[in-house]
Amino acid sequence: MKPRITIGVGGGTGSGKTTFCRKLAEFLGPEQVLILSQDHYYRDAGHLPVEQRALRNFDRPEAVDFELLVRHLKQLQAGREIARPRYDFSQHVRLEGSEPALPRPVILVEGTLVFAAEELVGCFDLKLFVDADPDIRFIRRLRRDMRERGRSVESIVRQYLETVRPMHLRFVEPARRHADLVISGVDAIEQQVAALGDRIRGAAGLP
Amino acid sequence: MKPRITIGVGGGTGSGKTTFCRKLAEFLGPEQVLILSQDHYYRDAGHLPVEQRALRNFDRPEAVDFELLVRHLKQLQAGREIARPRYDFSQHVRLEGSEPALPRPVILVEGTLVFAAEELVGCFDLKLFVDADPDIRFIRRLRRDMRERGRSVESIVRQYLETVRPMHLRFVEPARRHADLVISGVDAIEQQVAALGDRIRGAAGLP
Repeated sequence: MKPRITIGVGGGTGSGKTTFCRKLAEFLGPEQVLILSQDHYYRDAGHLPVEQRALRNFDRPEAVDFELLVRHLKQLQAGREIARPRYDFSQHVRLEGSEPALPRPVILVEGTLVFAAEELVGCFDLKLFVDADPDIRFIRRLRRDMRERGRSVESIVRQYLETVRPMHLRFVEPARRHADLVISGVDAIEQQVAALGDRIRGAAGLP
Repeated sequence: MKPRITIGVGGGTGSGKTTFCRKLAEFLGPEQVLILSQDHYYRDAGHLPVEQRALRNFDRPEAVDFELLVRHLKQLQAGREIARPRYDFSQHVRLEGSEPALPRPVILVEGTLVFAAEELVGCFDLKLFVDADPDIRFIRRLRRDMRERGRSVESIVRQYLETVRPMHLRFVEPARRHADLVISGVDAIEQQVAALGDRIRGAAGLP
């Protein structure tokens, strides 16, 4: 089978992209939806010394292997299986082996920079920007990085001020104008998912 | 002597009000400037059990003794000395004794809510709003409260989300429209202080 609709889901760190994608997949039926995450497509930093890897700027478009992501998206759109790469955030390297993924009727591509690469933007049938105020986004990132990655407050703050925020203002925020629809990542998420989910279900001819 | 100009300096938590006032006082000469801070005028919470005091909403206008602040400002404007209250942030009580303060040519009144009380707004010759993006403001508050008050990240985040932020959106941000001038609390502070300081010096006839 070939996918019927490909949707780009952009927005800043902590805006609520992942939650939105997960809820949309639940609404449409998980078997109808394939989610591709920009996070799986970071370029391998294995050539750098370990202590330099974490200091790399992960928030520039250059950090992401968009060529591979676009190639995979085109394979899926042609009805073919892909071999999704795996990325290790603690070592900043691409892991050996890959995860196979088959095309499904709805493809969601989510990440901060999905609208920053022109060749990727051209692949989307629908472009959604998930929005939340910067203080809320920072607090979500702070809590997640402390909980999941055990990082110190000061290292999270420093990375945010040195790379995440400047790159957000330079690459993420301007891409908002590419979006067909800006949705709130804070308020009434269930209602937004339901309204949009109904439209997508109709457009994609899903049961 | 009587003051020649009274300036209100408002803006959200972490916007840079205190830094701006300190730099402006340095520019004009510290002996020319008296700074009144909203923080000294919190109402005494000594009637509440200790564990309830910290949970009080400090970000509502009701938490501040604006009657006393306005009375003091009018005394100063009439050329009379005031007895400034002292406030203990760890115990949330007004301390015994007060600090005498004499009128000076320039009076700065700074705080999040200085434009939220109508009778206070009427006392100002010039109203300045210090502005900074919400993520920057939250990060400044986080660092300060960890460093100076030894609080946990989670308690700072919770207070911010439960009272500081909603009260900011309700009382602080709308007051921006009262301001004669919005200044950045992030960029080019020295230049802004110099430009404004020159105008104030001229208007107040200072040497």
